[in-house]
Amino acid sequence: MYTNLRNLLIGSPLPTSTTGERRLDKVRALASLSPDALASIAYANQEIFLGLVIAGAAGLAHSINLALVISGLLVLLTLSYRQTIAAYPTGGGSYTVARENLGELPGLVAAAALLIDYVLNAAVSLTAGVAALASAFPALWPYQTVLALVMLLFITLINLRGVREAGTAMTIPVYLFVFVYLGMIAWGIGVALVDGPGSLEAVAPAPIAPVTIFLLLRTFAAGATALTGVEAISNAVPIFKPPEAHNAQRTMAAMAVLMGVLFIGTVGLTEYLGIVAGPEETILSALARRLFGSGPIYFLIQVATLLVLVVAANTSYTGFPRVASLIARDGYLPRQLRTLGDRLVFSNGILLLAGLAGLLIIIFGGDSHALIPLFAVGAFLAFTLSQSGMVMHWRKERGRGWQAKAALNGVGALATGVALLVIGASKFAHGAWIVILLIPLMVVVFRNIHKHYNDVGRQLRLDDDTPEVGCTWHPHIVMPVAGIHRGVIEALTFACSVADDVTAVYVELEPETGEVMRERWRAAGLDRVANLVTVPSPYRSLIGPFLDELDRLDAGQKDGRPVSVLIPEFVPAKWWHFLLHNQTALPLKWALIYRRHRQGKSRVVIDVPFYLHQ
Amino acid sequence: MYTNLRNLLIGSPLPTSTTGERRLDKVRALASLSPDALASIAYANQEIFLGLVIAGAAGLAHSINLALVISGLLVLLTLSYRQTIAAYPTGGGSYTVARENLGELPGLVAAAALLIDYVLNAAVSLTAGVAALASAFPALWPYQTVLALVMLLFITLINLRGVREAGTAMTIPVYLFVFVYLGMIAWGIGVALVDGPGSLEAVAPAPIAPVTIFLLLRTFAAGATALTGVEAISNAVPIFKPPEAHNAQRTMAAMAVLMGVLFIGTVGLTEYLGIVAGPEETILSALARRLFGSGPIYFLIQVATLLVLVVAANTSYTGFPRVASLIARDGYLPRQLRTLGDRLVFSNGILLLAGLAGLLIIIFGGDSHALIPLFAVGAFLAFTLSQSGMVMHWRKERGRGWQAKAALNGVGALATGVALLVIGASKFAHGAWIVILLIPLMVVVFRNIHKHYNDVGRQLRLDDDTPEVGCTWHPHIVMPVAGIHRGVIEALTFACSVADDVTAVYVELEPETGEVMRERWRAAGLDRVANLVTVPSPYRSLIGPFLDELDRLDAGQKDGRPVSVLIPEFVPAKWWHFLLHNQTALPLKWALIYRRHRQGKSRVVIDVPFYLHQ
Repeated sequence: MYTNLRNLLIGSPLPTSTTGERRLDKVRALASLSPDALASIAYANQEIFLGLVIAGAAGLAHSINLALVISGLLVLLTLSYRQTIAAYPTGGGSYTVARENLGELPGLVAAAALLIDYVLNAAVSLTAGVAALASAFPALWPYQTVLALVMLLFITLINLRGVREAGTAMTIPVYLFVFVYLGMIAWGIGVALVDGPGSLEAVAPAPIAPVTIFLLLRTFAAGATALTGVEAISNAVPIFKPPEAHNAQRTMAAMAVLMGVLFIGTVGLTEYLGIVAGPEETILSALARRLFGSGPIYFLIQVATLLVLVVAANTSYTGFPRVASLIARDGYLPRQLRTLGDRLVFSNGILLLAGLAGLLIIIFGGDSHALIPLFAVGAFLAFTLSQSGMVMHWRKERGRGWQAKAALNGVGALATGVALLVIGASKFAHGAWIVILLIPLMVVVFRNIHKHYNDVGRQLRLDDDTPEVGCTWHPHIVMPVAGIHRGVIEALTFACSVADDVTAVYVELEPETGEVMRERWRAAGLDRVANLVTVPSPYRSLIGPFLDELDRLDAGQKDGRPVSVLIPEFVPAKWWHFLLHNQTALPLKWALIYRRHRQGKSRVVIDVPFYLHQ
Repeated sequence: MYTNLRNLLIGSPLPTSTTGERRLDKVRALASLSPDALASIAYANQEIFLGLVIAGAAGLAHSINLALVISGLLVLLTLSYRQTIAAYPTGGGSYTVARENLGELPGLVAAAALLIDYVLNAAVSLTAGVAALASAFPALWPYQTVLALVMLLFITLINLRGVREAGTAMTIPVYLFVFVYLGMIAWGIGVALVDGPGSLEAVAPAPIAPVTIFLLLRTFAAGATALTGVEAISNAVPIFKPPEAHNAQRTMAAMAVLMGVLFIGTVGLTEYLGIVAGPEETILSALARRLFGSGPIYFLIQVATLLVLVVAANTSYTGFPRVASLIARDGYLPRQLRTLGDRLVFSNGILLLAGLAGLLIIIFGGDSHALIPLFAVGAFLAFTLSQSGMVMHWRKERGRGWQAKAALNGVGALATGVALLVIGASKFAHGAWIVILLIPLMVVVFRNIHKHYNDVGRQLRLDDDTPEVGCTWHPHIVMPVAGIHRGVIEALTFACSVADDVTAVYVELEPETGEVMRERWRAAGLDRVANLVTVPSPYRSLIGPFLDELDRLDAGQKDGRPVSVLIPEFVPAKWWHFLLHNQTALPLKWALIYRRHRQGKSRVVIDVPFYLHQ
């Protein structure tokens, strides 16, 4: 049953041998890695608008300037990351770069920042997508959270099916979005030429705050979320078809150009045409409505926006599990995150991401505007670290023209670093503090996990390469018995075959029954095989007295090894039969295995099942 | 932590040796066994009123007649049960009597009826108690269910503490109830003499149904619930201080007299004084209000009613677990119901009762009137069976004057049998059908359980009394290995010490790693101890390929026994460390133990833990 459902949803297991085939060509890669960056313009537009509108028309007049500044950063980042890709064809995420060039701590900080951002990207994209949809169908506003969660579930399943299917499924919406928006911008320019500039004064609400530097900086901080996801491609170079690096760079360039056009185009048109959005509508929706009215084209645009944002959330599913597995490989996260699932994807990472994103969506009530302040910090922290890392990289390498490269990355580091300070400071109270608090916490956890794995390794490591295995363990086998039946005989047969020393322990759950038992034991002639010890149990419990008896017997051991325990266990034929038997075997096993022997010596536990056939 | 909480709520464990002390003297026994019967008058009064009021004054005029008929039955039952007690000093519940004298089937039917009734008694008493309380404080009506559940929890805890504490805690309310009500009746008679009869015509609502035989019979059926619990004492003879039988009989007589007085007294006064209750009040509350106004005395009476009903519910806690353990002893219910808990009470039975009663309270919305129709059926079915059983008993025994005794029980059987038919027929549609359906169902379950235990017994039984234990089992030990470390060496040491034949199995979770492993194995010189088999795992899963390999090795076994499996397992120092390791050992163990070998032969599973100290 379970398996069938699983295969239906996720697909049947794939053999490891098919790994190679799952690489992506440029077109699919662009679809699968760029939407994060492209779709960012949806919420970035919205944030710029919300940030400036409180200063009324005067404020909104700054939209395009902010858009240009941010696009400037985009160019800088693209150039820097092209260098990263060249230097790290095996996938140079901020984590790898920072770790190799700046050392462990910066690496871990970058790791934490990246993981946080992937989760936030999924949450923000989906909630923004719902906002786009609800702008067209205001009746949906109350269901923001539920809708976002449904979409989350949907892409989680797609991704559990495996990366290529994901790639394919995502191609269409991304290109739909690109064409629809390019079309809108072209048409918008036409409209602008015909109608001329619109007047913001006429439509903008009365300012409730003056235009201050701080207001502009804070809006910039929010708008800078447009740049989140730019690094996605450089993290994922290995999933490109060879030549990986080359294809990745081409794809990155294409993405940056597209993004600049869409971002400046939309913001520019909105300002030039003097468009303002109401409380229940996104600014992009308002733009589309102004250009095409509320007809089919408008709805097409909203749907395209929704879809691309869903696909953007999907980028996290490509990135998060991969980065998590890198960190796990270095021993800073649980090993389980490294295991490739049935479908050759890091299933555990995917599930972890889905869980965390879902949590965020619920906590913040499905409102992207509430999530944004947490978002940019991580992204820019990662940017800064990886850029600085690259500077060190070039300095170490000192290849041809290294100064130029180092300089470029240096400028990038500086710019993103300044942006980071602006964002952290201006958005601190709005939620940035959560991330600023979370990152060091995560680093501490990473370190503890790492320490644990080292400890385990050290404790398991052998002192010499050719260990001497002396087969001189003479086990003393102790088995609990409640009566004399086939199960016990079977168990005894095994016990006396492998050990010279066998003791049966009978716990008197009802008083005075021990004597009878000893009698029957002798009568059955079993005392020749194992001697029987009966122990009283004043409180009618089995495990306590048995363990005490074990300690007693341990004390009598010459070789200092604890006695071995054999548990005769009969296995009923039907599951509901378990309800009809006191299940003492299981708790006893647990008590034995997880209760340490004094000198930490291993106590062997032997299970001899006896199968009932009805 | 858990233990402390437990000891606080339930008390620390009691040694078996203290069992004897926990017997009850007559006073305590009356308090602990009679309230079920005594308190019945609370809901019986109510049911008679509700049954007749729909026929207006003319209907209510029949109250006293019904009360007298029911009291007649009470006398009959008391006399019959005195004989039962004499005949079964070890506790002659309907189950025992019916089973011994009428055979298995009737016995099981009686058992089912008894269990159902104990559960219903707990539920009905508590809900009726809440009704008494809410009559005084109408604001509480909306919280019927919750209040009833809280009380259920309270008495459950008290009973888990052990029967004597229960007895003590219960004495006060019972005697408070008796005295308060006797007082009220005395005072009521005084009032009646002074005021003379009141007129029902004046106060009764307009009749909405004529006074028909059927109406009277149906009301009788509901009122007969007054008799539920009369048998409680005969079930529990063994908890009396010796001489058990004698003390039990005395107690029973005392109870019957008390009950008659209270029942006839209250019903008589209500009718004579012409009292009618409103929708939000019980008839007993109306009586008390009429006699004492809404002052302190009235509240005292309501509180006494509430308390005695709580105590009545407690009777089920004395009876249900005891009967359940009797049935379990005969193998018709899970053995767990036989085990005496820490506090020398049948904890499992108590918990089961609490669970079922709680369920009923929730399903029927805490309304006793809705539960009543299910109630009387079981009680009278049990009465009839046990009386008929007694007739057979006397016939078999043929002691002095057996005819007289047989005749008496015969009359009892007849009377209760007729009542049973009346109840079943007139209340069928109102809910009696549930019980009539449930009883045969339970009988089927009983039988299946019995069959299972027999099957198990037969399969475990040895063919001869002195079984030959040949210690000639030469185990072939197979162990899964993921690498070469101390845990493995420890495991190998044990394996090669007890078996001549040791095979290590390495599952290639990552392709092409097998060769490396074989190399390291040889280099470490382990091939001298165990030969290493490497198996591919195209789907990167461990358990599947390992099990397949086992089947392969099983096939090669000369003695036809499946190979034994040794699992090297390392045990982390802290619980959260478990999160950092793939827990393959546990699922593997389960797969091995609960996956049957072809010929149903036992596959031994050996656990060699390796303890990490940090």
